[in-house]
Amino acid sequence: MYTLSKQVATVYVGRKPLMNYVLAVITGFNAGAEEVTLKARGRALSHAVDVAEVARSRFLEGVKVGKIKIGSEEISIEEQNRTRNVSTMEITLTRSKPKPKVKPKRKRSQKEKKE
Amino acid sequence: MYTLSKQVATVYVGRKPLMNYVLAVITGFNAGAEEVTLKARGRALSHAVDVAEVARSRFLEGVKVGKIKIGSEEISIEEQNRTRNVSTMEITLTRSKPKPKVKPKRKRSQKEKKE
Repeated sequence: MYTLSKQVATVYVGRKPLMNYVLAVITGFNAGAEEVTLKARGRALSHAVDVAEVARSRFLEGVKVGKIKIGSEEISIEEQNRTRNVSTMEITLTRSKPKPKVKPKRKRSQKEKKE
Repeated sequence: MYTLSKQVATVYVGRKPLMNYVLAVITGFNAGAEEVTLKARGRALSHAVDVAEVARSRFLEGVKVGKIKIGSEEISIEEQNRTRNVSTMEITLTRSKPKPKVKPKRKRSQKEKKE
């Protein structure tokens, strides 16, 4: 459902339940991604917007909606020997502040006490 | 289906056939709007992207997709005494170049011939 290369993760949104994709987005950010891109086409477009909104507002603090791209793709229907256009969308979610690192802070406070 | 104030038109996309909204967008630009904003929510989101793509690629030359905004709204369901979140989207189409004015061009070419 998602691919992770370097610091950019991509989640392809289809017909599965919303929370599957929200979990994929959270997993992407937890794996160290700075950006997670949601890709969808056709009727799944509105599903992708739902995923972005739920992930951002309920689960991920400091994650913002970045660039949104829309476009269209041609799909060939072999049975009828013709092509159809289908709309596509890409929503990029970006982490706006780094994760708070708990362990290093503790070490620092111990040092400060010694001093 | 659409409102026009100054140079900004708004088209609310719902469940009507695609071409109704495409026609509303074209009418907006023909009435002198510099920007036409498509607004939709819930399942109509993908319909709004379709409208933008069809209007841009098939009917309106020099019109580009500008800002795209996503968000969510709370809707109260009175029967069940609770609220539901619904995703919203705004797609702004902007005219990137002015309409070609045919008459002034003809006058210029006549002057050039004289010179």
